[in-house]
Amino acid sequence: MTDHSQSSPGAPTRAPGVLVRTQGVTSAAGFRAAGVEAGLRAKGGLDVALVVNEGPDLAAAGVFTLNKIKAAPVLWSQQVLTSGRLRAVVLNSGGANACTGAPGFQDTHRTAEHLASTLSDWGTETGAGEIAVCSTGLIGDRLPMDKVLGGVTEVVHELAGGISGGTDAAYAIMTTDTRPKQAAIHHENGWNVGGMAKGAGMLAPSLATMLCVVTTDAVASADQLDRALRHATAQSFDRLDVDGATSTNDTVLLLASGASGIEATQEELDAAVLAVCDDLADQLMADAEGVTKRIIVRVGGAESERDALVAARTIARDSLVKTALFGSDPNWGRVLAAVGIAPVALDPDRIVVSFNGSPVCVDSMGVPGAREVDLSAVDITVEVDLGVGSASASIRTTDLSHAYVEENSAYSS
Amino acid sequence: MTDHSQSSPGAPTRAPGVLVRTQGVTSAAGFRAAGVEAGLRAKGGLDVALVVNEGPDLAAAGVFTLNKIKAAPVLWSQQVLTSGRLRAVVLNSGGANACTGAPGFQDTHRTAEHLASTLSDWGTETGAGEIAVCSTGLIGDRLPMDKVLGGVTEVVHELAGGISGGTDAAYAIMTTDTRPKQAAIHHENGWNVGGMAKGAGMLAPSLATMLCVVTTDAVASADQLDRALRHATAQSFDRLDVDGATSTNDTVLLLASGASGIEATQEELDAAVLAVCDDLADQLMADAEGVTKRIIVRVGGAESERDALVAARTIARDSLVKTALFGSDPNWGRVLAAVGIAPVALDPDRIVVSFNGSPVCVDSMGVPGAREVDLSAVDITVEVDLGVGSASASIRTTDLSHAYVEENSAYSS
Repeated sequence: MTDHSQSSPGAPTRAPGVLVRTQGVTSAAGFRAAGVEAGLRAKGGLDVALVVNEGPDLAAAGVFTLNKIKAAPVLWSQQVLTSGRLRAVVLNSGGANACTGAPGFQDTHRTAEHLASTLSDWGTETGAGEIAVCSTGLIGDRLPMDKVLGGVTEVVHELAGGISGGTDAAYAIMTTDTRPKQAAIHHENGWNVGGMAKGAGMLAPSLATMLCVVTTDAVASADQLDRALRHATAQSFDRLDVDGATSTNDTVLLLASGASGIEATQEELDAAVLAVCDDLADQLMADAEGVTKRIIVRVGGAESERDALVAARTIARDSLVKTALFGSDPNWGRVLAAVGIAPVALDPDRIVVSFNGSPVCVDSMGVPGAREVDLSAVDITVEVDLGVGSASASIRTTDLSHAYVEENSAYSS
Repeated sequence: MTDHSQSSPGAPTRAPGVLVRTQGVTSAAGFRAAGVEAGLRAKGGLDVALVVNEGPDLAAAGVFTLNKIKAAPVLWSQQVLTSGRLRAVVLNSGGANACTGAPGFQDTHRTAEHLASTLSDWGTETGAGEIAVCSTGLIGDRLPMDKVLGGVTEVVHELAGGISGGTDAAYAIMTTDTRPKQAAIHHENGWNVGGMAKGAGMLAPSLATMLCVVTTDAVASADQLDRALRHATAQSFDRLDVDGATSTNDTVLLLASGASGIEATQEELDAAVLAVCDDLADQLMADAEGVTKRIIVRVGGAESERDALVAARTIARDSLVKTALFGSDPNWGRVLAAVGIAPVALDPDRIVVSFNGSPVCVDSMGVPGAREVDLSAVDITVEVDLGVGSASASIRTTDLSHAYVEENSAYSS
């Protein structure tokens, strides 16, 4: 169980039930999942994942990258989701299928068609229009479609309920992730929400780069799911910013089976989906490429939540702040220089900065001992007060380390 | 002499005369300069610089950081410049005097007063209101005023015309710079423009972090100088972006002595000041902290120059693009992912990307051999066509290297 009052940079909601990280998409009744190795990744390992909703409901919602350059599977899944229904989600690592033009879009379409016919052969009647596709990996190359289609056939055979199916799927979507990310909530009213996510670099603004599938067995309409998902991503993934980059493939999906037979209120659903997304966001931060510090930047004293968020994001993206924190250096002057550039209202003579709860700068001037604050631990909280209001917001970020540079200058799969 | 058609990311103006890098602020008649060691830097070395205008004119203009958190010397010099007159500029490395509150402002005031009285003692009648002050170094600490004032006294004694005075001053403003930056143009009409600059990290958007003093012996009014300086900085320093950070101390000053007795037209002045600033910007890029690649990002096919500039800056700031180029990796997909986030008009299916003149992506898809383009040389040009118009603009930037991380995580003086 996670202490949400500590980890959440968003609303300090408490998880409305027990939150566990050992279960994911199959913790909600009515879902089966699997992961197989189709040979898409140079390194080997599971690379095709499948999540199937066995109903009785097929309600679904999705949010997608705001990047103008959208990968083929994003264009496909956005189109499919206009119906508010999803039978299944197929995901692959080992290739993003982005910047692949019309042929790449046809590859995605073919993948959905092949999955629909394979599922239908096995007794789950469905069409390509009920299937979302997600891809992650290097931008710019076509996928080896013989391997993808073989993997799709195989992953249908492997479909399983219970914990193992969801865990295999969570492994199959990893790229430079070092571990799978899952979270699930068993609501006290008898329904469940479970999710899995991947993402380790290119994590940013409007949707940290990532694929994420969340499931629930509550009875909920597509509209309710859409509201819950937008609320949750705005408070969680949108407030994770590792390197300011937003990928071409970001996708977060929410599927409801209604298998519990229990109706959740909008408020209950919002809280449970947020709790799962927030915990997954925390796991994404902790496993970001090259991370050596887990950093929460909390800005208060702002005129509006929007100002607080912009200021926190500006600090979280500043290379000089990030390198200083990598070096455990309480260089608060860089925090002031960074926030001074944010397009927000602030009082330049009334800024307060604290590191891990110790004030290092008051009224925009250093305090005695400020340069001796110990930042050697992995977790660092940077708190900044703008001195002009009472709104606040937080961003999760990481440091800028040698390992980040190494991983991203050598990255090729 | 520099080939400006190659190096300038701004207007492809040709230098209106011979451009040399061996002379700086004292290449214009009527200026004397010096640099001394006052003991402000832990490492030792020259750390107090002085540039004095001996007239007959004292016209001047300045542009300053847009950071809301402004160092004391910036606040002081902005105020002084409202008169359009400057007798002298005193600059120190070894401390930014930023985030030092009212006491820090008094330190700046005292420095100007002390310089005015020392210059007056030596026969150059002046007041503090004709003296600009610039500081660079760590943010947040008070300057050791006994050393600063001692240095001011000494630097007045050392004042010299000729090349050596300007060169000493250029050395005295260095921090993590590895070499002094100077440039001068001898205009064919008989007047001169010379300049010096420092800046190696925290180089960014609206004014790359830096101190820069430019002098001319042309006859020009404060208004003319103001126009020439704003034109030049917009085309040069504002298009240099090493790490997206903008300092609290950025200052660029332009002083005219009128000592040549020759009036320059606005157009001539604009071109000469731009040529000097552009060359200094090129030197700043080449000596940026941790640089291993000198990168020009040129965006064309844009709806407006503003769009082209925003797109180029977005690419130039992208950590994943910068780490890929550090690794000499022609990972064009990251360029597309980066530009797709820029708030500009573009055709997502018609983007063209070239590395060093070789097209690697056409119509938003990779071309054969794209991943084999050789980027092992130090200079890299990234050209991107947005496919929607005919406007273009360029940004100078650098890679994100291990050395950048090292220098900035250990930086403390």
